[in-house]
Amino acid sequence: MRLRHKPWAKEKLTAHPEYVITSPAQKKTSWQEIFGQEKVLFVEVGTGKGKFLTEMAEAYPEVLFIGIEKYESVLVSALEKALETKPNNLRFILANVADLLDYFEENEIHRLFINFTDPWPKKRHAKRRLTHPSFLSLYEKVLHPEGEIHMKTDNQGLFEYSLESLSRYGFTLKNISLDLHRSEFEGNVMTEYEEKFSEQGARIYRLEAFKSR
Amino acid sequence: MRLRHKPWAKEKLTAHPEYVITSPAQKKTSWQEIFGQEKVLFVEVGTGKGKFLTEMAEAYPEVLFIGIEKYESVLVSALEKALETKPNNLRFILANVADLLDYFEENEIHRLFINFTDPWPKKRHAKRRLTHPSFLSLYEKVLHPEGEIHMKTDNQGLFEYSLESLSRYGFTLKNISLDLHRSEFEGNVMTEYEEKFSEQGARIYRLEAFKSR
Ligand SMILES: C[S@@+](CC[C@H](N)C(=O)[O-])C[C@H]1O[C@@H](n2cnc3c(N)ncnc32)[C@H](O)[C@@H]1O
Ligand SMILES: C[S@@+](CC[C@H](N)C(=O)[O-])C[C@H]1O[C@@H](n2cnc3c(N)ncnc32)[C@H](O)[C@@H]1O
Repeated sequence: MRLRHKPWAKEKLTAHPEYVITSPAQKKTSWQEIFGQEKVLFVEVGTGKGKFLTEMAEAYPEVLFIGIEKYESVLVSALEKALETKPNNLRFILANVADLLDYFEENEIHRLFINFTDPWPKKRHAKRRLTHPSFLSLYEKVLHPEGEIHMKTDNQGLFEYSLESLSRYGFTLKNISLDLHRSEFEGNVMTEYEEKFSEQGARIYRLEAFKSR
Repeated sequence: MRLRHKPWAKEKLTAHPEYVITSPAQKKTSWQEIFGQEKVLFVEVGTGKGKFLTEMAEAYPEVLFIGIEKYESVLVSALEKALETKPNNLRFILANVADLLDYFEENEIHRLFINFTDPWPKKRHAKRRLTHPSFLSLYEKVLHPEGEIHMKTDNQGLFEYSLESLSRYGFTLKNISLDLHRSEFEGNVMTEYEEKFSEQGARIYRLEAFKSR
């Protein structure tokens, strides 16, 4: 994600506590209370500019959506999208995914989206990949027993790594697509990166994973 | 596999009991006794014309190789290859893979190769795919606890299906390659189909799987 310096981003994010949570201290009650709605929770890690989640929130009003993004200058674009359509089932968290347990209880999340996360191709950076076992152990905790991880990427190496990492960790794989845009998959909502890379002709890979029972 | 009618195939196969076993009754002792060598066993299901196994047998003299093929007219080509180089660590079985347990004991096989097996793309034919759970249950039995399945295919649908089928069955996946011929994988021995399809520009997919411990 190319970062533009946006000195006003922090201020804008904190000016919209109805959409953005910027510290664990702000999240004192359950997500259901924050939203004022009793619905299942779907979370995206590494949300970027928010196209996917704002469109998903519109398409699935029966679900509460939360996006986690660590860069203010990126998350502010997601906030701006939300301010256009004002969904009441969408929130953002300005945080590192490594701090997931500061924001979620065990078994709380029904679906976790990992979309076009940074591939970190060098082996010595493997720990930073959002499908490294250290992240999977966080996801395992916050995922509901019937919960699922849904991942998309254009990056072949990251996809190979993620299939193996999930399998070794004990997740079961299903609905794998090695060429999503030429598959029978219906209702795909594209992310910013997905739009960009698929226009350039890249294959999009997709998988679902669930805790083995 | 295009079948040519070869009325003489059966006769030729039975004329070479030192290489070809054509019925369970012929396999009375252990494989180690048949080979007269105490070595680990690697088995290929759906061997076809035998290029892969004859080359593997030459490259790995410390391993005993067995290929299973159901068509006489196809297996005879594998036999002819073996008769050229006369390896002492290679045998063929004329049989359906469904009858695997007639030929192997529990935990006997250290590696099982599934190369470019027929994709059977129609859902109603899924049972015929050599990675259908009914076949995986046979492989699980004959595989050594430390044994592995190694699979290659050019067929995207079959590969997606096989990743899921293995994962759901409880195998763990590793060393996945979504583009084998442009990967860092070393020592690849090509099969007949692999040569043909990769010349036509097809991607080759590869996976390894082991029994979860
Ligand atoms: C390559 S972008 C993809 C954005 C979006 N998901 C899409 O598909 O268009 C990855 C995003 O994940 C964010 N990110 C990466 N690692 C993160 C982490 N550990 N915690 C929070 N955000 C992270 C990056 O800041 C970046 O905005
Ligand atoms: C598509 S060919 C591939 C041959 C070879 N493995 C290669 O990669 O060139 C598949 C072969 O598997 C054999 N085969 C398929 N199902 C089988 C079964 N159930 N039992 C034994 N052989 C089978 C077919 O007869 C055919 O020769």
